Amino acid sequence: MAAKILYGKPIADRIHNETARRVAALRSKGIRPALRFIRVGNDPASCAYVAMKEKKATELGIDSHTIVLPETISQQELLHLIDTFNKDDSVHGILVQAPLPQHICEQEVFAAVDPRKDVDGFHPENMGRLLLGDPDGFRPCTPAGIIELLRSYDISWNGADVVILGRGNIVGKPLAAILCQKTAEANATVTLVHTGTRNIKEHCQRADILVAAMGKAKMITADFVKNGAVVVDVGVNRIADATSSRGYQLVGDVDFAQVSEIAAAITPNPGGVGPMTVAMLLANTVKAAEFFHSSR
Amino acid sequence: MAAKILYGKPIADRIHNETARRVAALRSKGIRPALRFIRVGNDPASCAYVAMKEKKATELGIDSHTIVLPETISQQELLHLIDTFNKDDSVHGILVQAPLPQHICEQEVFAAVDPRKDVDGFHPENMGRLLLGDPDGFRPCTPAGIIELLRSYDISWNGADVVILGRGNIVGKPLAAILCQKTAEANATVTLVHTGTRNIKEHCQRADILVAAMGKAKMITADFVKNGAVVVDVGVNRIADATSSRGYQLVGDVDFAQVSEIAAAITPNPGGVGPMTVAMLLANTVKAAEFFHSSR
Repeated sequence: MAAKILYGKPIADRIHNETARRVAALRSKGIRPALRFIRVGNDPASCAYVAMKEKKATELGIDSHTIVLPETISQQELLHLIDTFNKDDSVHGILVQAPLPQHICEQEVFAAVDPRKDVDGFHPENMGRLLLGDPDGFRPCTPAGIIELLRSYDISWNGADVVILGRGNIVGKPLAAILCQKTAEANATVTLVHTGTRNIKEHCQRADILVAAMGKAKMITADFVKNGAVVVDVGVNRIADATSSRGYQLVGDVDFAQVSEIAAAITPNPGGVGPMTVAMLLANTVKAAEFFHSSR
Repeated sequence: MAAKILYGKPIADRIHNETARRVAALRSKGIRPALRFIRVGNDPASCAYVAMKEKKATELGIDSHTIVLPETISQQELLHLIDTFNKDDSVHGILVQAPLPQHICEQEVFAAVDPRKDVDGFHPENMGRLLLGDPDGFRPCTPAGIIELLRSYDISWNGADVVILGRGNIVGKPLAAILCQKTAEANATVTLVHTGTRNIKEHCQRADILVAAMGKAKMITADFVKNGAVVVDVGVNRIADATSSRGYQLVGDVDFAQVSEIAAAITPNPGGVGPMTVAMLLANTVKAAEFFHSSR
């Protein structure tokens, strides 16, 4: 039996509509939610990604602007710019696009953003609130998007054996932190599997829900997946493709053709988790603006 | 074959000696590491615990003092006292003893302590640093003690399948956050098991290292444990005992008599993890003092 395909776009569009409605409500009170993107250098993927997020933000009525800094900028100058936005009451969200040049410490930069403007959810204080189960603060956008995507398709995490592949700070670790909480939307039994795991395949085989976020093209083949499992494919990998005008194609961490034959449900990639990430970012931004103005 | 017993006291004593040496080094420079305990009300267990920690701190040369507040104190007054210590440069560590009365929000209180004085490691920023793998900040004392205890007995977490029972903010969740990191001392494959888990016993049975921190007296019997596993017993439970002058005895989460027959190694309880917790608290305190004076 072929798996149900968990398309992200219709769910993301519904969230965008809701965000646009909330933006309009704020604007009717004279408040203009504002998001500032900081991009360092001209990495093509970062350029495309920031442009796409900024375009969507603008569409929804968010005052959105990208500051482009040269590759050679010092960490101190970058921190100074962040501090300026931290102090600017007309700015509600600040997003520093990763990756940053090697001479800049990403952790220090993310920690410099005011946690109340940290719409990417990467500040240590926001990460800590996730782990503590404190509902204040911002959730990182991709984990939040994954949780919302399955919920929208009536797939429950509650009581499920969840195996997450990949212990990155953007997806794997924060997703594990949310899913282990004692809440109705979470309450999963989570195993975080990574390059240090001895028996990766065995762990995957017992998962009710398998989340692949390790960045290895098509690593998850059918033999990793239990019959009837739900599979979430987060990875974005470039593989060479001479037939493409770009010279490559983008593929996920899951071998979709194989796995969709035995899974109960599966996210496509692209078109699954990706759109959800952008939706959660802009929802976080309007939340930041709402919170700022309700707490004054 | 009977298990090796992982006594905490000799390891804790070695750490205390090292802490005393570091305290003496600071005092020779005119710096007096100082720790303030805040106890609200007169819960007998809290009284005993704080007194024991204060006594040990004093023994090691740490300027140590307990402020006792009435059960009826408002959250605002408690936060005000914390703020006074936050601003006092002569105080390096602040510990608010849990549990707090019901009208006070523990999360808000822990989050009010300056993260650089948060020697209990409960501030969201310190929790977030754990999850992000950032070595700055303070580790909660019990998880840090558990990791150090096994390391001292040459038991490696690296590559091990670790099952942690219990998702508390003091032990389960922060321990999971440390152990999943890509570091030589950690790098374990961690599953966090809890009341929402469907098949608790099956998860436990595949663990190379099993950490019981759920607070259920003697729940872990031999049938939960793989032959040759390492078992860490964190729970502290009171069970009625008419033969004891106190009317109760303290027991762990593990049925020691049974499990010690099949495990390769096991922590006694009491006498295993407990002494390590105090050792890590006082090591955190001297670290706070060292950091404060090196960063001036």
